[in-house]
Amino acid sequence: MLGSTYDGEICSAARALEFVGERWSLLIIRDALFRHSTRFGDFQRSLRIASNVLAKRLEGFVAAGLMEKRAGDEQAHEEYLLTKKGRDMLPVIVALTEWGDRWAAKNGPPILYTHTCGASIKQSIRCVQCGPIENETIGVKLGPGFTKTKARKRIKERA
Amino acid sequence: MLGSTYDGEICSAARALEFVGERWSLLIIRDALFRHSTRFGDFQRSLRIASNVLAKRLEGFVAAGLMEKRAGDEQAHEEYLLTKKGRDMLPVIVALTEWGDRWAAKNGPPILYTHTCGASIKQSIRCVQCGPIENETIGVKLGPGFTKTKARKRIKERA
Repeated sequence: MLGSTYDGEICSAARALEFVGERWSLLIIRDALFRHSTRFGDFQRSLRIASNVLAKRLEGFVAAGLMEKRAGDEQAHEEYLLTKKGRDMLPVIVALTEWGDRWAAKNGPPILYTHTCGASIKQSIRCVQCGPIENETIGVKLGPGFTKTKARKRIKERA
Repeated sequence: MLGSTYDGEICSAARALEFVGERWSLLIIRDALFRHSTRFGDFQRSLRIASNVLAKRLEGFVAAGLMEKRAGDEQAHEEYLLTKKGRDMLPVIVALTEWGDRWAAKNGPPILYTHTCGASIKQSIRCVQCGPIENETIGVKLGPGFTKTKARKRIKERA
């Protein structure tokens, strides 16, 4: 976890990045989601990253509640299982994939997401009133969580 | 840019992370998208990050085609403008925000995304045949870009 790296940022995207903004974090979650990797060795064979980095990420996910550790038959086979909090990162991975398919996949998408029915899936942003909308029509406004603690602290610091 | 850090990963999400996987990258794009930051000083005041890191990220975005640099009235006021390739990261930021709103916003969302009509927006994943679907019903299969270059190279390396 990046922890408080983005502490001054009054923004849920920054909060999310504190959980998954470190190198390899999202690819570990991708493997857990779509390759159904659960064991240390599964992740390591797939990602080929240094053991100490992988261990740090997996233990970080457990500490942050994105994964649960389950003891296996033997100590060597303990499993790391995504929790609901971890599985909820799926839309982030799909969004990154759609960008990569569009802008960094010369030969076409290497991997396709599919529904259980066999058809392909598509991520989209909709207005709750108007239906599908273009990205250019999206703006921001302050939400109910804005005025609390950190925002106040930050505004004070700036004054 | 992380460049070839995830070179062995046959996956568009990994490709996307090579463009925006470094610390602060996505928050810089968020500021450009939603705070309409364009000048070096805008980003610096908002994010309060070290000048050298910010300069590296902005120049990296220009080199990678996510931003264009436009000379201003004076040399000190050059602007960094998102290209279509950069603006297309919006769904990634929305996905991260929705996760953060759900799992890391005790006091409610600090920032709300809205459509120009004033109503709120929602990101969703749909099956092109069945409509809205649950995350749990999404799987993967190999796409047309899978067998090319890197995948072959990687499989060869493993053999």
